[in-house]
Amino acid sequence: MTVKLGELTWQEAEERIAAGAVAVVPVGAFEQHGKHMPLDTDWRLVSHVAEAAAMKASAKVPVVLLPTIWTGFSPHHMQFKGTVSLSLSTFQTVIQEVCRSLWTHGFRKILLLNGHGGNMAPLRSIAAEMRFADQVRVAVASYWDFAVPDIQSWRKSAPGGIDHACEMETALMMHVDGRLVKREHIKNALWFPKSGYLSGDLTIGGQVTISFDLAEISDEGVAGDPSTATPERGEQLFNIIVDRVAAFIEHFFGWDWSRPDQI
Amino acid sequence: MTVKLGELTWQEAEERIAAGAVAVVPVGAFEQHGKHMPLDTDWRLVSHVAEAAAMKASAKVPVVLLPTIWTGFSPHHMQFKGTVSLSLSTFQTVIQEVCRSLWTHGFRKILLLNGHGGNMAPLRSIAAEMRFADQVRVAVASYWDFAVPDIQSWRKSAPGGIDHACEMETALMMHVDGRLVKREHIKNALWFPKSGYLSGDLTIGGQVTISFDLAEISDEGVAGDPSTATPERGEQLFNIIVDRVAAFIEHFFGWDWSRPDQI
Amino acid sequence: MTVKLGELTWQEAEERIAAGAVAVVPVGAFEQHGKHMPLDTDWRLVSHVAEAAAMKASAKVPVVLLPTIWTGFSPHHMQFKGTVSLSLSTFQTVIQEVCRSLWTHGFRKILLLNGHGGNMAPLRSIAAEMRFADQVRVAVASYWDFAVPDIQSWRKSAPGGIDHACEMETALMMHVDGRLVKREHIKNALWFPKSGYLSGDLTIGGQVTISFDLAEISDEGVAGDPSTATPERGEQLFNIIVDRVAAFIEHFFGWDWSRPDQI
Amino acid sequence: MTVKLGELTWQEAEERIAAGAVAVVPVGAFEQHGKHMPLDTDWRLVSHVAEAAAMKASAKVPVVLLPTIWTGFSPHHMQFKGTVSLSLSTFQTVIQEVCRSLWTHGFRKILLLNGHGGNMAPLRSIAAEMRFADQVRVAVASYWDFAVPDIQSWRKSAPGGIDHACEMETALMMHVDGRLVKREHIKNALWFPKSGYLSGDLTIGGQVTISFDLAEISDEGVAGDPSTATPERGEQLFNIIVDRVAAFIEHFFGWDWSRPDQI
Amino acid sequence: MTVKLGELTWQEAEERIAAGAVAVVPVGAFEQHGKHMPLDTDWRLVSHVAEAAAMKASAKVPVVLLPTIWTGFSPHHMQFKGTVSLSLSTFQTVIQEVCRSLWTHGFRKILLLNGHGGNMAPLRSIAAEMRFADQVRVAVASYWDFAVPDIQSWRKSAPGGIDHACEMETALMMHVDGRLVKREHIKNALWFPKSGYLSGDLTIGGQVTISFDLAEISDEGVAGDPSTATPERGEQLFNIIVDRVAAFIEHFFGWDWSRPDQI
Amino acid sequence: MTVKLGELTWQEAEERIAAGAVAVVPVGAFEQHGKHMPLDTDWRLVSHVAEAAAMKASAKVPVVLLPTIWTGFSPHHMQFKGTVSLSLSTFQTVIQEVCRSLWTHGFRKILLLNGHGGNMAPLRSIAAEMRFADQVRVAVASYWDFAVPDIQSWRKSAPGGIDHACEMETALMMHVDGRLVKREHIKNALWFPKSGYLSGDLTIGGQVTISFDLAEISDEGVAGDPSTATPERGEQLFNIIVDRVAAFIEHFFGWDWSRPDQI
Repeated sequence: MTVKLGELTWQEAEERIAAGAVAVVPVGAFEQHGKHMPLDTDWRLVSHVAEAAAMKASAKVPVVLLPTIWTGFSPHHMQFKGTVSLSLSTFQTVIQEVCRSLWTHGFRKILLLNGHGGNMAPLRSIAAEMRFADQVRVAVASYWDFAVPDIQSWRKSAPGGIDHACEMETALMMHVDGRLVKREHIKNALWFPKSGYLSGDLTIGGQVTISFDLAEISDEGVAGDPSTATPERGEQLFNIIVDRVAAFIEHFFGWDWSRPDQI
Repeated sequence: MTVKLGELTWQEAEERIAAGAVAVVPVGAFEQHGKHMPLDTDWRLVSHVAEAAAMKASAKVPVVLLPTIWTGFSPHHMQFKGTVSLSLSTFQTVIQEVCRSLWTHGFRKILLLNGHGGNMAPLRSIAAEMRFADQVRVAVASYWDFAVPDIQSWRKSAPGGIDHACEMETALMMHVDGRLVKREHIKNALWFPKSGYLSGDLTIGGQVTISFDLAEISDEGVAGDPSTATPERGEQLFNIIVDRVAAFIEHFFGWDWSRPDQI
Repeated sequence: MTVKLGELTWQEAEERIAAGAVAVVPVGAFEQHGKHMPLDTDWRLVSHVAEAAAMKASAKVPVVLLPTIWTGFSPHHMQFKGTVSLSLSTFQTVIQEVCRSLWTHGFRKILLLNGHGGNMAPLRSIAAEMRFADQVRVAVASYWDFAVPDIQSWRKSAPGGIDHACEMETALMMHVDGRLVKREHIKNALWFPKSGYLSGDLTIGGQVTISFDLAEISDEGVAGDPSTATPERGEQLFNIIVDRVAAFIEHFFGWDWSRPDQI
Repeated sequence: MTVKLGELTWQEAEERIAAGAVAVVPVGAFEQHGKHMPLDTDWRLVSHVAEAAAMKASAKVPVVLLPTIWTGFSPHHMQFKGTVSLSLSTFQTVIQEVCRSLWTHGFRKILLLNGHGGNMAPLRSIAAEMRFADQVRVAVASYWDFAVPDIQSWRKSAPGGIDHACEMETALMMHVDGRLVKREHIKNALWFPKSGYLSGDLTIGGQVTISFDLAEISDEGVAGDPSTATPERGEQLFNIIVDRVAAFIEHFFGWDWSRPDQI
Repeated sequence: MTVKLGELTWQEAEERIAAGAVAVVPVGAFEQHGKHMPLDTDWRLVSHVAEAAAMKASAKVPVVLLPTIWTGFSPHHMQFKGTVSLSLSTFQTVIQEVCRSLWTHGFRKILLLNGHGGNMAPLRSIAAEMRFADQVRVAVASYWDFAVPDIQSWRKSAPGGIDHACEMETALMMHVDGRLVKREHIKNALWFPKSGYLSGDLTIGGQVTISFDLAEISDEGVAGDPSTATPERGEQLFNIIVDRVAAFIEHFFGWDWSRPDQI
Repeated sequence: MTVKLGELTWQEAEERIAAGAVAVVPVGAFEQHGKHMPLDTDWRLVSHVAEAAAMKASAKVPVVLLPTIWTGFSPHHMQFKGTVSLSLSTFQTVIQEVCRSLWTHGFRKILLLNGHGGNMAPLRSIAAEMRFADQVRVAVASYWDFAVPDIQSWRKSAPGGIDHACEMETALMMHVDGRLVKREHIKNALWFPKSGYLSGDLTIGGQVTISFDLAEISDEGVAGDPSTATPERGEQLFNIIVDRVAAFIEHFFGWDWSRPDQI
């Protein structure tokens, strides 16, 4: 049976709500990904991960999957043609109103599953605001957050290799929709700041946050090393991530918000 | 070759912009459609129409298709489980910022192709605002607006038969994704106001506008008569609408905003 | 006895509310109307229509008339000196807060009677928002909406003749305040788009909506044919419109919002 | 010749702007004024004062008069039926956008002439904001500010006698539109706070500002002593105020913003 | 025992709230004060006054002192380096949300004690809005408002001498933190408008309000005459003001909002 | 010489700007810290750290220190008396407007030095927004971010021991202002979620973010183990953190935004 909320009638949605279903809301972006990957890369990857994980988890717990929100927060990519970005406040408000709708209907386990680094701080911010201004509780994570140690084992690139249109994203894309990867344009565009205070890798934290325009650090819009990506490596990582996300969905289902000591 | 902007790289997007491509932005909703159709009906129909029309038109003129904005303005359906609605100002601002992104990159022919009646006045409003506050020009229409006389010939239902989860939507849905229509739940739920000042049919204008909550007029969330819908009739109407929308895209491509006397 | 709410004390207002009075809120604009009509044309016409209709209806049902909101949504006229326009969100919020005040006091039949084409989509939008965000119900119509067939019989001009500073507005103005019409500046400035998708006439619908700056289509700020306007024809049309609006007010009084099946 | 901007065409407005005309924008309110005066008292008084002063001044300097903004900031009167109030931010934004329209067209002398005490701090606030955020300069005053010493000589009431629906407003109203004053309901409802820190009189400053709901201090919505008001005394005061406002308009015309040392 | 709320634990705060403590919220600014005084002058003066007055009053009534809000409304000083200013709406919203927090906890006597002239109208405006939109009551005054007659006796300067970086502020600063006053840069920069309608002195009202940029009237950013300021005169005035503010705090404690007739 | 911008005149500020001074903007909060620490703990700690680090760095590079923004984002502490919190959008806008003021004057190295965990995602979010909407660049970090490895060596508590009113904050507070720590109320209130997906320690990342109300996890408002805190350990950690922050300030001074490859 489908996990897509969009494929259900309101009556069926009502049943899922009554069953305590986890609602997975994928959040993507629509931004340039170099000359070798398409504008909808973030949307596509998070949609695939979310659907596969929701399907897997649904064998054990009730789950519904929302359509992916494709309008993300990507001002740092606007120098490259085709990128669509909301402003910070609009992005945050869209998330807030979508979650408020779900909460109103009775969904009590909402997972904002993110697929774009630049969305993360805004998502965490609005999640805190919703908790208190709207009494709406959500959990927030990027799909890679569930698999950082796995990614570190998996990677071949040096620090800076996994950031944007990078080793990870390219490999995953080769797996989920290889026809959209233009291999002739793949090249190592690894970038890591000189300053030890900063990071240029999705899986490595930095002490200090600053915001670069991608155009400042790359003519082609790539920050990472996609050169070792293969469909096989993509499939391997995809499966790991999906397992991890599915495991969290099952785990999340078991939480009782009224018993924080048990969470 | 694909018409989906999301499947292009920024470099390819740049080429389409240079060619003067029409950018089609489908705008849907995520709202209940009775017991016989799914929550994503509006999203699904406008996406199918937009893609088919963009494909058809692309044989003659350059076109790109954006992902469908699925977060619409549907407060009147919130009584039914699963509906997701933005507030008016958020909905309008999302549209504004998406179009602003496109305009910034150089797209000069933006078509907001709508698939939900409740979005229409907000879309027209923000289109006027964008024209002057942002210097962004767009064209706005619902897909059925292009085919009102055809629909009137095609229909079997009395006035009130084509409104929500209705003869038209059900037939179209049977054609584009029949597995999602629950035929056992189809029944005539035609509704038309008693007052001659009002309308309860998408294709018939009224003198006065008021807003009903769907729950006030229907226990099941249907306003219309889906009972005569068939896949064949759906295909017939779908093709007409697609032809009409494609024709407009081709026509729109030819406009020169600096020559309003020629438009 | 006066129908003007402004001429009543709060105590008398209380009585009208208790009687279930219809509250008529005229909404105008303050924008250029060519070289032959004044900046307050929209305000003046809708004020006259509203007052005459409210007076007429008050013989049968309780009515109160609010002062006309003169600050409309007219960005497309700002190239012409003297035009005053609110932004979209401010215009919508003013309407929302005025109606909220009235609803708070107990008015349950609020008619937003519009006199400027550019206000219409914003008014319909905010009416839907108020219905659900504020639980405030209103009815929205432009005064000419009540008389489209009459206008079509009455008119002498071709399509495009009735749009802005046009046959209809000029004739009505000659009737209600002829001293303000500069006859020496009247000339036929009929404008209708070449594209069959568009309309350039208030009484004719178009399939597609776009926004022109009036300055793009007319040096003088006129879109229509005022050349056949006379005070007599103005009086004739004014009386028809007033009758139609008054009839709706009487009809509206009879609605019971809790019985949507009876509306 | 008319001073009303609304009665001019855009072409005539252009001429007035070229002549450096002072633009007078009266700002009223729509709020209860006890059992003896109507809801539009503030609108009516400021409109009369503004028109008479503009007419008088226009004998010497070019002046245009805008329609009175009747939607004021009156939350403290909402307990009484019929009052219409905007929220603070909406009220301020309306003022800002009206003045911005005027400035855009070239008006450089904008006088916000206020007729409601509760509007004053919001008007002063937004005037400062406009000066720097929009580069729009305005002058702000309530009509009585021009005549405080005259009012003090004229008054018969003790402190607290001139505040709301009071000696001054009642007398002025008797002069400008006596039919709207219900004399049988006039009684002394003078109110002055016990605390020496506060004021309860429009013409007397207090050290500390707090906000009362009118319903907290008066069952009838009056704070003042209208018992000595007569049409003759109203006329006398009206003429003084009009002279004072007209004198300021003439004086204001002479200012050169680029020479602040001469202002 | 401390009056600073910030030095209390939440438990101790609870006790003060239970005792009905007056909450003093000093509001400053961060703006240039000529070549002889520092950017934090307004913050510093209002902080010193507030603390001394709160201490004094606390001998008789329970008081808590909030940290000074240093982000004021100072767009008219932005031409001078170092000034930090919020926009009007942000400034007003900060005040609103701080007061709302206090009210939520149970504080019922909130004094917004202001130390910057430009904040005053915005503070009064938002105080009125809070009273009705949030049901939060506050009292608003600038510290000098409590001592205008005293200041007039104390002053040596002509009108215009007490406005910005002036006789009063310089003397007070010499007293509270003399090391921050650069005496070599003190000179008479008294400014008073030529127009009799305006004022250029904090202690003198004007009929009309306009907004100057300080840079328009002074190269050095001073409007006033600090030349006669001495530490001794500063101490004298400081003590008077502190006494006056303390007296109000004690008085304010005694108010019962539910008995407006006793206030 | 002082590093406090507030103690400088505008002329001196101008010199610091010309010298390329780093502007340090400490951002605190005003929220409960259990029964043993005061409401201004976050404000106090970040102020002390910022001042000491700015002083230290100023021996080598020009630095100015802004007053600490004490109005933070603390909705999760509002159940405890005395907490003051802004809403998310107001908090973000205050930061944006303060930084915009600084950037306007010419400051090009702005460090938002944070002292409250809940502020971090909002600060990172608005920093990204400012970079593109306002062309204002800032660096963002919490003071502890500079010393995570040091803190891990220093700590005695298990995971969960350093979170709120915790081992770290208590020790630091004992050092900077010991009189404000109520030792009799110190007890181990270590809290760490059961779920392996979450974190309850400032120095340990979690895969998933959710928002607890402090009142849900602690009756006293403490999440951490302050029981081993001593002034000596506080001094030791304070000095390490100050060194680290000072080192970053010196390093930051050297960045050239126009040479991102060198950063």
